[in-house]
Amino acid sequence: MTQHLDALQNKFEAALLNYAGSLPDNSLHQPIRYILALGGKRIRPALVLLSGKAFGAAEGQLIRTALAVEIFHNFSLVHDDIMDKAPLRRGKATVHEKWDSNAAILSGDAMLIEAYKQLSLCGHDHLKAILDLFNTTSLQVCEGQQLDMDFESRTNVSVSEYIEMIRLKTAVLLGCSLKMGALLGNASEDDCKHIYNFGKLCGIAFQIQDDYLDAFGNPQDFGKQVGGDILSNKKTYLIIKALELASADVQAELESIYFQNTISDGDKKVSRVLKLFRELKIDEITKDESLRYFQLAKAEIDNTSLNDSQKEGFLEFLEMLQGRRK
Amino acid sequence: MTQHLDALQNKFEAALLNYAGSLPDNSLHQPIRYILALGGKRIRPALVLLSGKAFGAAEGQLIRTALAVEIFHNFSLVHDDIMDKAPLRRGKATVHEKWDSNAAILSGDAMLIEAYKQLSLCGHDHLKAILDLFNTTSLQVCEGQQLDMDFESRTNVSVSEYIEMIRLKTAVLLGCSLKMGALLGNASEDDCKHIYNFGKLCGIAFQIQDDYLDAFGNPQDFGKQVGGDILSNKKTYLIIKALELASADVQAELESIYFQNTISDGDKKVSRVLKLFRELKIDEITKDESLRYFQLAKAEIDNTSLNDSQKEGFLEFLEMLQGRRK
Repeated sequence: MTQHLDALQNKFEAALLNYAGSLPDNSLHQPIRYILALGGKRIRPALVLLSGKAFGAAEGQLIRTALAVEIFHNFSLVHDDIMDKAPLRRGKATVHEKWDSNAAILSGDAMLIEAYKQLSLCGHDHLKAILDLFNTTSLQVCEGQQLDMDFESRTNVSVSEYIEMIRLKTAVLLGCSLKMGALLGNASEDDCKHIYNFGKLCGIAFQIQDDYLDAFGNPQDFGKQVGGDILSNKKTYLIIKALELASADVQAELESIYFQNTISDGDKKVSRVLKLFRELKIDEITKDESLRYFQLAKAEIDNTSLNDSQKEGFLEFLEMLQGRRK
Repeated sequence: MTQHLDALQNKFEAALLNYAGSLPDNSLHQPIRYILALGGKRIRPALVLLSGKAFGAAEGQLIRTALAVEIFHNFSLVHDDIMDKAPLRRGKATVHEKWDSNAAILSGDAMLIEAYKQLSLCGHDHLKAILDLFNTTSLQVCEGQQLDMDFESRTNVSVSEYIEMIRLKTAVLLGCSLKMGALLGNASEDDCKHIYNFGKLCGIAFQIQDDYLDAFGNPQDFGKQVGGDILSNKKTYLIIKALELASADVQAELESIYFQNTISDGDKKVSRVLKLFRELKIDEITKDESLRYFQLAKAEIDNTSLNDSQKEGFLEFLEMLQGRRK
C-alpha cells in the first residue's frame, strides 16, 4: 500500500543522482557526492512531492525544492556527526572520518548554500514564502541540535523539554517538507497549516516510537541492538518519563544505574533498567503517547480540504511510519 | 577624505548593534552576539551602503542586505578559525576557544541561515537576483577556503593559482557587496559588472599589498609583527613568485629555509628570506602587481555611468585601502 510513496522516493532518487553527478569533482564537492550517495529513505523529499502532487504543484519546482530539503538534511547529518563524534553513518564512515573535520565543516557549509541554490529555482511567485519557511525551519533544526547537546550535561530535563527538542531537531523539517509542497500547489493557508502540523506530529510520534522500540522492540524487526540507548546513557522519552514518575528511591536507583553505570555489565544494566521501566509502566505509557501523536496527526489530514483519494498518500505515510517496526 | 565611508560604517554599526541585541539570549545565539560584538572595520556592509546610495537604492533594503553580508562574513570567520585552529580573533578568544568547536560549528551554521533571513527581506523585486549573487559568491568563498587549505599540503602552487585562491576567498565578497547595492538601486547590467569588478580587483590588490606589508612594511604602521608570514611558513604571493623566478639553486635554498625551517632562529630566518626576496626583486614586483590591480580597479569605476560626485566614495575607498599602511 505504500507503493505511492515508494514511487516518489524512486523518482526523487533519480533526480538526486543526476544532481550529485553534476557537482564539480574537487575536494570541496567530493564529500558532498559521498554523503548523498550513502542512501537513506529520502522521506523528506518524498513528502515534498507527495504534498505537492496532492495540491497540484508543478513537478519541476517540486523536484528542486525536494532536492533542497534533502541536501539540507544531509548537511545537518554531516555537521551533527562531527559534533556527536559519530564514526559511522548508514554503516559507512562519516565524512569527518573519511576525510577530516575541516572537510566536513566546509563541505557541510557548501551543502547548506547548495540547498538555498535549489530553493532559489522554485519560481518567482513562491520564492519569498518558501524561503521564509525554510529559514525558520532550518534555524529551528539548529536550535534542536543545540538543545540536544545542552541536555547531555543536564540531569533535570523535563518531558515537555524533551518533546520540544525532538519537535525542533526532527519534526519541523517533516512539517516544512509537506508545507513546501502545499505552498507550491497554492494550497490555502488552512490546508498549509494542517499539512504542516501533520508532518510535525508524525515526527514527534515517530521519535517517541523510536525510543520505545530501542528498549522494547523485537530485535529482529528493529534492525539495531535493542537497549542501545540504555547502554549509551542516552536521554530518551523513556528515562525522562521514568524519572518523572518514580518515587525518590527508585529515581535515585535509576539515575545511578542509567547515568553513572553502577552496573558495569551491559546486559545486566539493560535488564535492570527495563525491569524498572516496566514496573513504572513506561512501556505502556510511551506506546500510548506515540499513538496519541499519530492520532493527532491523522486528525490534521481529516481537517484539510483534500478529498479521500488525495488524503490517501498522507495516511499511507502515517501507516508506514507507525507500522514499520512492530 | 574617507569620512563618507566612515559615516556609512558608523550607521551600519548602529544597525548591527540593534540586530545583535534582538537575538535570543540562548546557547545557540550567545556566540553569535559575541563574534558580532568583536568589532571589525565593517568594510563589506559599508560597501553595500556606498554603492546602494550611489545608485539610489532604498535605505531599509540596503541595511538588511548589509547585515546579511556582515553576518555571512562573520560566519566564515567563525568556521575558518576552527579549521585554522586560530586561538585569537581581533585580540580576543575565538568562538571555538571561548566555547568549543561544537558551539562554533552550530552557531556558525545558524549565522549562515541568519544571513539568508536578512536577505529574504530585501524586497520582492530584487530577491531572486540578490539571492543568485549571494549563492554564487558564498559558494566561491567556500571554494577559496578549500583551495587555501589544499595549498598547505602542496609545494607547487603557481602565482595564477594563488591569485585565483584570493579572488575566491576574499575578493568576490567585496565585489558582491558592491553589486548588491547596485542591484537594489536598479543599476544597469553594465554598471553592475563594473562595480563588481571594482570590488573584486580592489580585493586582489589589497591581499597582495597585505602580503607585501607583512614582509616589507613599516612595523609601526603595519600593526602586527613584520615577517609573521615568513615565520609561519605561509604561502604568500612573495614566496610563490620568488620560487617561480629563482634559479634552481636559490629555489632549493628558499624552499628549505622557508618551509623546512633549516634556520631555526626566527629572526635569522626572516632576514635571510628577505635578503633572497630583495635579490629577486620580489619587493618591487609585488608592489607593482598590487598597484596594477588597484589601477585596474580604478578603471572599472571610470567605466561606470556614475557622475564624478557619485564616483567619489568609491575612489575614496580605493585610496583608503591603498594608503592605509605605507
